[in-house]
Amino acid sequence: MTELLSRLTEYAEGNMIPFHMPGHKRDPGLFLAGGEDLQGLSALYGIDITEIEGFDNLHDPEGILKEAEERAAKAYGSAYTHFLVNGSTAGILSAVSAAASCADLAEKRALLVARNCHKSVYHAAFLNRLHLRYLYPSFDEEYGIGGKIRPSDVREAIRSAREEGLFIAGIVITSPTYEGIVSDIGAIATEAHEFGIPLIADEAHGAHFGFYFEKGVSGGGDAAFVIPENAVRLGADLVIHSVHKTLPAPTQTALIHINGDIVSDDLVRKYLRIYQTSSPSYPLMAGIDAAVSLMAKKGPDLLSRMIGMRQDLQSGISDLRCIKRCPYTEPGKILISVKGAVKDGVPYTGKDLSDELRKSHRIELEMACGTYALGILTVADSPENVKSLAEALRRIDAGLSFASRESASSDASSDASFEDADKMRPEAVIPFYEAYGMDYEEIPLSEAAGRIAAELTGIYPPGSPYLVPGEVWSEGIAARVESDIRNGLHTEGVRDGLVRVLSSPGGQKRFI
Amino acid sequence: MTELLSRLTEYAEGNMIPFHMPGHKRDPGLFLAGGEDLQGLSALYGIDITEIEGFDNLHDPEGILKEAEERAAKAYGSAYTHFLVNGSTAGILSAVSAAASCADLAEKRALLVARNCHKSVYHAAFLNRLHLRYLYPSFDEEYGIGGKIRPSDVREAIRSAREEGLFIAGIVITSPTYEGIVSDIGAIATEAHEFGIPLIADEAHGAHFGFYFEKGVSGGGDAAFVIPENAVRLGADLVIHSVHKTLPAPTQTALIHINGDIVSDDLVRKYLRIYQTSSPSYPLMAGIDAAVSLMAKKGPDLLSRMIGMRQDLQSGISDLRCIKRCPYTEPGKILISVKGAVKDGVPYTGKDLSDELRKSHRIELEMACGTYALGILTVADSPENVKSLAEALRRIDAGLSFASRESASSDASSDASFEDADKMRPEAVIPFYEAYGMDYEEIPLSEAAGRIAAELTGIYPPGSPYLVPGEVWSEGIAARVESDIRNGLHTEGVRDGLVRVLSSPGGQKRFI
Repeated sequence: MTELLSRLTEYAEGNMIPFHMPGHKRDPGLFLAGGEDLQGLSALYGIDITEIEGFDNLHDPEGILKEAEERAAKAYGSAYTHFLVNGSTAGILSAVSAAASCADLAEKRALLVARNCHKSVYHAAFLNRLHLRYLYPSFDEEYGIGGKIRPSDVREAIRSAREEGLFIAGIVITSPTYEGIVSDIGAIATEAHEFGIPLIADEAHGAHFGFYFEKGVSGGGDAAFVIPENAVRLGADLVIHSVHKTLPAPTQTALIHINGDIVSDDLVRKYLRIYQTSSPSYPLMAGIDAAVSLMAKKGPDLLSRMIGMRQDLQSGISDLRCIKRCPYTEPGKILISVKGAVKDGVPYTGKDLSDELRKSHRIELEMACGTYALGILTVADSPENVKSLAEALRRIDAGLSFASRESASSDASSDASFEDADKMRPEAVIPFYEAYGMDYEEIPLSEAAGRIAAELTGIYPPGSPYLVPGEVWSEGIAARVESDIRNGLHTEGVRDGLVRVLSSPGGQKRFI
Repeated sequence: MTELLSRLTEYAEGNMIPFHMPGHKRDPGLFLAGGEDLQGLSALYGIDITEIEGFDNLHDPEGILKEAEERAAKAYGSAYTHFLVNGSTAGILSAVSAAASCADLAEKRALLVARNCHKSVYHAAFLNRLHLRYLYPSFDEEYGIGGKIRPSDVREAIRSAREEGLFIAGIVITSPTYEGIVSDIGAIATEAHEFGIPLIADEAHGAHFGFYFEKGVSGGGDAAFVIPENAVRLGADLVIHSVHKTLPAPTQTALIHINGDIVSDDLVRKYLRIYQTSSPSYPLMAGIDAAVSLMAKKGPDLLSRMIGMRQDLQSGISDLRCIKRCPYTEPGKILISVKGAVKDGVPYTGKDLSDELRKSHRIELEMACGTYALGILTVADSPENVKSLAEALRRIDAGLSFASRESASSDASSDASFEDADKMRPEAVIPFYEAYGMDYEEIPLSEAAGRIAAELTGIYPPGSPYLVPGEVWSEGIAARVESDIRNGLHTEGVRDGLVRVLSSPGGQKRFI
């Protein structure tokens, strides 16, 4: 058992009488006596303590939590690492806030962000009243997903922002993306550092990166067979890892790593104290420690086994006619495209695939949209489950036929076309941080085109908004959102067909 | 089993194959195969899922989480209630941010706060760049604790702040305090509402309030025998409850209630989305639901039983000579004073009591300081444990003798005298929100007097700072902090005897 967990277990077995928090007193008996049954929660209660004698304070660690954080720092090659119990969200908010406070408040401060970043990046910009400038990923037409952020675009964006008179407090790159696309963090860090700007790598989906299974092994051009290096070792200043996403740690746990000398560990910690509960859960922290310790010890073996599962999956589905796996995603993401597929004469969508897997094969995927569905593979998967997935995909594929692009142009399978660069690059007419605090009114989505958004809008997961406050609803974006809703995707920012737009006069209809 | 938990358990038993987050895939087998043992975490992993089909999104709830929140709202008598997985901290940050954004940014905005509020209130003021004005609780000399906030002081403070030209965005009252002192929230709400100001009740320590065991029963003047009404029903606009503190819910879980028409539920939810992880833990949320449902169903019985335990405790210790229980605390707090007690000729402190209970009686209390120690009693306690506490206190008392006030005036037992109103009311010379972002230097605590603090400083728990950035270190406060450290209390803001003060010129020595 890993150290933190074994200390909790040891304490639980010590039969101390608790006249302290938490209020459950580590005893589910109360519920049992009441005819209730806590089942899975019972064991959690047993090891759920607070900062009692012999334990430590996450916000000012001096003992076992400090040691656990140092173990994590070592595993990732970081100067400083901190446990997060409020998810990567807390890491993003703290990283951006710390970077922003390195700039003088009198400056016109901005954050340069990958447009496909998580909503927490926008929230951080709002809290710190930062202007936003965007880096647009390339777009992959075939699979309908955003691609890498080009280092040359970063350099160009920095120059352009500086010409505008903006002070760039930081650059935020999401890599890997939710879909598994990895940017060249090393090259981007070089560009950023040339201008003395800190690079914040939102590597939330890449907590398994850098635990090489075999250094330098080539995947034959297929990204699915090589574990990338982590952003810490590639030179990013602040790196955030969601350990619950791709490592075996409990939901809402994460890590932040601090390196370089642009943003100090001290400043980041100040914000971690602000954005995280003063009563962090020991079971969650023990879960982080357990997952990271496991990877530190067995990472290469486990990842080698995981790559083996990917190879098995590939062997099982490589000859399918209508179902196609995207070869650009890192090993943790299985992006299954059904673009152009038809079933019983009707276009077959990623959502249809996901539903069929659930209903007929007891397989639950991570996310689905118009042309593809996405699965997450981790070191905790089993070859048997991967075999089940391959078998299910084979059986589903057998029931599909392939339509030409023309005949597959009906709404459901064509939403990737909305990704057309211009249509999906909204115009910002009011700074985001101002617009997000302005008066708004609710109108039908069908009347949104031409109005200025008052809310972050986009599908969740992943939670990267298409449109943010201060930007104009274009017909293209409105059509995309309408299509998402028709396809049954959970869309944040739309309720009962209504969206929020800025009230007049700021929000009056500008064109159309 | 309560609804949310039973849905998780049901899902876990359904044997769906998970190609989604979390990365542990609900299976601790990986650790077991690696020679590790997850013990208490195994069961947690089994019910730890994410927003998959059939479940719900905490930030935009439409299904089972919406229903669970509605059950909680009903239990507390609130118009709107939301689950918090980032502790009361997230509730305070969101409540203050929402209240602040009701005011025009052009105004000179301020927050009127009880001086003994939690550090998260200061953090919220910092993030929102709010001026701070204080409400000082009365001070109880006998037990060395802060008392109630007087409604008349609230009225006076509002008037005075308005005369200064401040726009008061909100009033924050901590009730009950960490020590269990309850203010008259109803009367304070009336004062606040007369001026159209929202009252934010930090009732973090009072999640058990309002689940009456017997309406109107008098405790004969002893607060320990009557469960107070909750702040929601007493008219506070925004109320925060830490369900993990006094109810049987997991650590870092809490609730926020929204009422009245000054601050909208919608605005609070905007900030909850900002300050809380986008991947909330279902086991934590199920724990909230389980605890609240239990109280809704069996609250009166459980609290009646709890009051019975308090009566047993009182019977067991009422005749002690040196150990005295404070009669002003609500039933959930057992404040045990050893003021004036001596053991083997040496003054006996609260810390000594706490240590002796731990080492000789296997009883762990919540907190201890110079003259008292504090225990928390909840509905999850057992009469046997309470009997053990009473018995231990009897045995300890037998070894103590009582010194006169004069002879007990040595350092360890006299720190309450530092609570002398004037000495503990620091002078603010720079607005807190500005000072907290200014350059600082580290100096020995012994040289702090006269310098301007750059950090929040005070013992944790409870985490209510004596001194905040922008305030001048007085000799009284420096002496109090030195005494705390000598007494072995965990003091935030002091590391290795060093404290942070503002650098010159802003921080230059102003006097002495």
